[in-house]
Amino acid sequence: MSKIFESSDNVRNSKPLRHVKTLVFSEPFALELGGILPCVTVAFETYGRLNEARDNAIILCHALSGDSHVAQHDSEDDPGWWDIMVGPGKPIDTNRFFVICPNVLGGCRGTTGPGAINPATEKRYGQNFPTITVGDMVGLQRWLINRLGIEKLLAVVGGSVGGHQALMWAKLFPDHVGSVVALATSPRLNSQALAFDVVGRNAIRRDPHYYGGQYYDHEHGPEVGLAVARMIGHITYLSPEAMKRKFEADRMTPHEVATEFEKVFSVGSYLGYQGTKFVERFDANSYIALTMAMDLFDMGTTREELVKACPASCRWLIISFSSDWLFPSEQSRDIVNALIARNAPVSYCNVQSSCGHDAFLLLDDFALYGEMIRAFLINQTPPHSGQLSTEAVVDKQSHAPTSIFHQRRLDYDRIVELVEPGASVLDLGCGSGRLLARLKRKGHRRLVGVELDEQKILACICRGLDVVQADLNKGLRAFADQQFDCVVLSQTLQAVLDVEGVIADILRVGRTCIVTFPNIAYHKNRRILAEEGRAPGGSGWMRQKWYNTPDIRFLSIADFEEFCVEKGIRIERRLAMDTEANLEVSENPNYNADLAIFVISRVG
Amino acid sequence: MSKIFESSDNVRNSKPLRHVKTLVFSEPFALELGGILPCVTVAFETYGRLNEARDNAIILCHALSGDSHVAQHDSEDDPGWWDIMVGPGKPIDTNRFFVICPNVLGGCRGTTGPGAINPATEKRYGQNFPTITVGDMVGLQRWLINRLGIEKLLAVVGGSVGGHQALMWAKLFPDHVGSVVALATSPRLNSQALAFDVVGRNAIRRDPHYYGGQYYDHEHGPEVGLAVARMIGHITYLSPEAMKRKFEADRMTPHEVATEFEKVFSVGSYLGYQGTKFVERFDANSYIALTMAMDLFDMGTTREELVKACPASCRWLIISFSSDWLFPSEQSRDIVNALIARNAPVSYCNVQSSCGHDAFLLLDDFALYGEMIRAFLINQTPPHSGQLSTEAVVDKQSHAPTSIFHQRRLDYDRIVELVEPGASVLDLGCGSGRLLARLKRKGHRRLVGVELDEQKILACICRGLDVVQADLNKGLRAFADQQFDCVVLSQTLQAVLDVEGVIADILRVGRTCIVTFPNIAYHKNRRILAEEGRAPGGSGWMRQKWYNTPDIRFLSIADFEEFCVEKGIRIERRLAMDTEANLEVSENPNYNADLAIFVISRVG
Repeated sequence: MSKIFESSDNVRNSKPLRHVKTLVFSEPFALELGGILPCVTVAFETYGRLNEARDNAIILCHALSGDSHVAQHDSEDDPGWWDIMVGPGKPIDTNRFFVICPNVLGGCRGTTGPGAINPATEKRYGQNFPTITVGDMVGLQRWLINRLGIEKLLAVVGGSVGGHQALMWAKLFPDHVGSVVALATSPRLNSQALAFDVVGRNAIRRDPHYYGGQYYDHEHGPEVGLAVARMIGHITYLSPEAMKRKFEADRMTPHEVATEFEKVFSVGSYLGYQGTKFVERFDANSYIALTMAMDLFDMGTTREELVKACPASCRWLIISFSSDWLFPSEQSRDIVNALIARNAPVSYCNVQSSCGHDAFLLLDDFALYGEMIRAFLINQTPPHSGQLSTEAVVDKQSHAPTSIFHQRRLDYDRIVELVEPGASVLDLGCGSGRLLARLKRKGHRRLVGVELDEQKILACICRGLDVVQADLNKGLRAFADQQFDCVVLSQTLQAVLDVEGVIADILRVGRTCIVTFPNIAYHKNRRILAEEGRAPGGSGWMRQKWYNTPDIRFLSIADFEEFCVEKGIRIERRLAMDTEANLEVSENPNYNADLAIFVISRVG
Repeated sequence: MSKIFESSDNVRNSKPLRHVKTLVFSEPFALELGGILPCVTVAFETYGRLNEARDNAIILCHALSGDSHVAQHDSEDDPGWWDIMVGPGKPIDTNRFFVICPNVLGGCRGTTGPGAINPATEKRYGQNFPTITVGDMVGLQRWLINRLGIEKLLAVVGGSVGGHQALMWAKLFPDHVGSVVALATSPRLNSQALAFDVVGRNAIRRDPHYYGGQYYDHEHGPEVGLAVARMIGHITYLSPEAMKRKFEADRMTPHEVATEFEKVFSVGSYLGYQGTKFVERFDANSYIALTMAMDLFDMGTTREELVKACPASCRWLIISFSSDWLFPSEQSRDIVNALIARNAPVSYCNVQSSCGHDAFLLLDDFALYGEMIRAFLINQTPPHSGQLSTEAVVDKQSHAPTSIFHQRRLDYDRIVELVEPGASVLDLGCGSGRLLARLKRKGHRRLVGVELDEQKILACICRGLDVVQADLNKGLRAFADQQFDCVVLSQTLQAVLDVEGVIADILRVGRTCIVTFPNIAYHKNRRILAEEGRAPGGSGWMRQKWYNTPDIRFLSIADFEEFCVEKGIRIERRLAMDTEANLEVSENPNYNADLAIFVISRVG
């Protein structure tokens, strides 16, 4: 326990962490960009118990200013930075999992960083601390895991720069990682995020009290520079909406806080306070070292490199937040697309949130992303006897009498029959995953769902399915040509604006495609228009009114057949049914059927 | 000319401006927040000639770091900051207009600011320069205009903080402003923008070389702090997309520039250079004074205050840019909505742009926003004989044989007849403004168009119409109950997703509403579905195919009548026509007509 103070006491007033353990590696630690650390200390905390099989360990990677104290150990303990997520019965359930949270290499909370004594010189490293990378951080964590006797992690979990570490774990040690949960992260920083880090480092390094990094023995360090860097960072962690909520009502009423920074506006008093407090607990050289590691982090400059860096042997859960502008959701989508290209098992959701980058630390959207993480992690372990699986819970819910799926099963039966045994299937507009779940039970192994609705995505994750959030109208660029044996577009075509684009896309991605849609030429519809002079609807599959139906495209079986001829699409099978009578229709389907099922493929 | 150097020579290396004129006001200038400047110098440049009527003067308000040199005076002259906009034949045409661009109060390029000598102490003001506001800046400009013998400005034009000044001109001196063009601006800063300014000021004031603001006689001023503030600012002026374009390709290859700031990444070398250059030409105390004026600027904390601050006696053109995250487009929309509430003549477009806040200074989107400004300003003056009016140009274009409006006029004839003489009209989905132009010629005075398409908005502005960009599916919240005598929804209902919401909204806003839509129960459509088993389309108003029509709602005349009954809507008139035969239909319209025209109103 003594080691921890050796490397953290350079941070004035920093509170010692009571439950921290330390391990010292006295062998030299070689760094990715050259240079060696002759001796490295790792500070970490653990929660829960390692089971006998040693297969329930999860490593949690903290973000820029975090530390090993991810959660309270007991009710007397100080709050942790992710108490909502980690603990008994929480999504990362310490009754079930053995959780390890190390302070990061280069940090200032116990693990060796620029504030530590360099054994060679017996002085603090300061600016002589070698440039470290996210790979180095992960390498040290791997060393730690090894020493704890763990061969393979059940999961690596992290948000922000913690997410970078999680991605890097999978890249460097794919055989030692079962699954990855990465929140609010990116394959590398975009130029805007990089720019803010650069300005922060400039503020620190050009602070006259920086003294070339050897400020430790001076009365003042680069406190203004570090505070300015922290203030900039704080703005980037919040969304404009969140700032409006926090500061607009009392815009001109600054809080009475102890800071020498400007206090004219409420947002200014907040930032000044945050900057002032941060200086008390964080080392400026660590801030430089960690932001530089973050800025150098790059999972792949080209798409090909990124694809190569994402192993298919892990299972992945990627979560972004819609208002995160520091690591915007498109960057998470780049990771997801690379994983899809590898045929890696991945689920993804861009959580609608107003909380910005910090959303992954906050309660606001926790009901969604917390439950996604809970279900995902539970599905990485064998089901406990007596416990209801997450899928069983979902099934029970969706069998409720109010479920719209309750009575409509005939078309699913047919689709399941039409899919070749063992085929890989992409289900577009997969809903809560009932069709995919049936295929899974039939033994299909490569199954992917695409869905927009967050709750349905959660339901799919609970079923242990891979589901990716995407808008069909924006195209299926993530998917490669002929990547799936079968693409299913079930009762979705009629809700799509860009019909030509979506059909071209599914024929590109699937060797065969199953398309189902309501038939506007169903005899009841014909009668309604011809005899009553009313827009078709109100019967068969077209239940809703002209002004509130989610359907925006109306076609008949004959229309679709003509479309296929025009576009050079091969029709392999056609089935039709009268879902009101729950019957398959063979005679004059364009008149007698309200639902059509086509199996199509691309010619040539 | 000597005065200019007196107040700008504190900025080391700043280049003198050759064409600057100065005026000195030796009376005391009282400031909004208290305090007096005993003597004020205004530096300004002028372009073009004031006409005899003295009614062709435009004042241009510069942004934070700009100055009076808005454009080149001749080919030998240094480039101006808005050369693309101002000059002979340019949108702000100096052959036509007399353009005045003053350096702002508090600045450091000729006009009195913190670097000027305080006559009372014979020392520079420094931090003793009183807090100034945007109102003070505009008050000084008003004084200048007065001295130039101009009673009323044709227009006030400005972007960013220049836009703030333009808004403030209209608020303080509505009788002296004919029109306002405000680009990339806001009714006040949001908390995020405010926060960046606060951090910038903190970096300057807490720089040890700030010396309480009296750094002028020291070897070094707060150069690091000012450079850091400028770097932060620069990030906020660019969009993430623009930064990607600028820096991603050579991310790790910094430019060889003269700066002592970090040069590891290309974006870092850019920012370092910008920061270093800025220090050479700008005074830190001016930066503090001007950003504080910007941060204190507030056209109204509540919507009511904002509405009160926007006079209806001026004509307004508001332009925002979609990727501007410093002054996001919703803030421009707040101004527009306030103007709409005042029944002020306003046009608005949120230009689709990837260039961020700086878009208004760049060529990328200039073809659109430049032409909008050109047309808007021309329409503020009486048409010159022999010159084609901007409306005539548009008319000529839209009469080309390819125009979809070429043959379809019967419904417009009917709508024009249905509108009460002199009624105020809101045309939703107004296109290029042909209907409104006809009503204008008939003598209607209060006419407003709503449209999404940028080019059509430009066409409306060319016609001298007031047009506001908005998405009908997002509602008409900007408009008050019963604000218009008549709301027209012509051939637009079928392209709207939220039919119930839009109909409820138009009935709220209009005393009467004219709704036209294609009739799905037209006999040809009935036959196509009943006999051919094909989706209606290909004839009458429904020309396109089921898979590529912009229409997403399909209804018959009978459906709409039932809808009106269900929702308690009064049908005042109904007309129907066969547009293929160009005939009005009286017999069995739900069978014989392909287009319906309803006049409806809210019951009670």
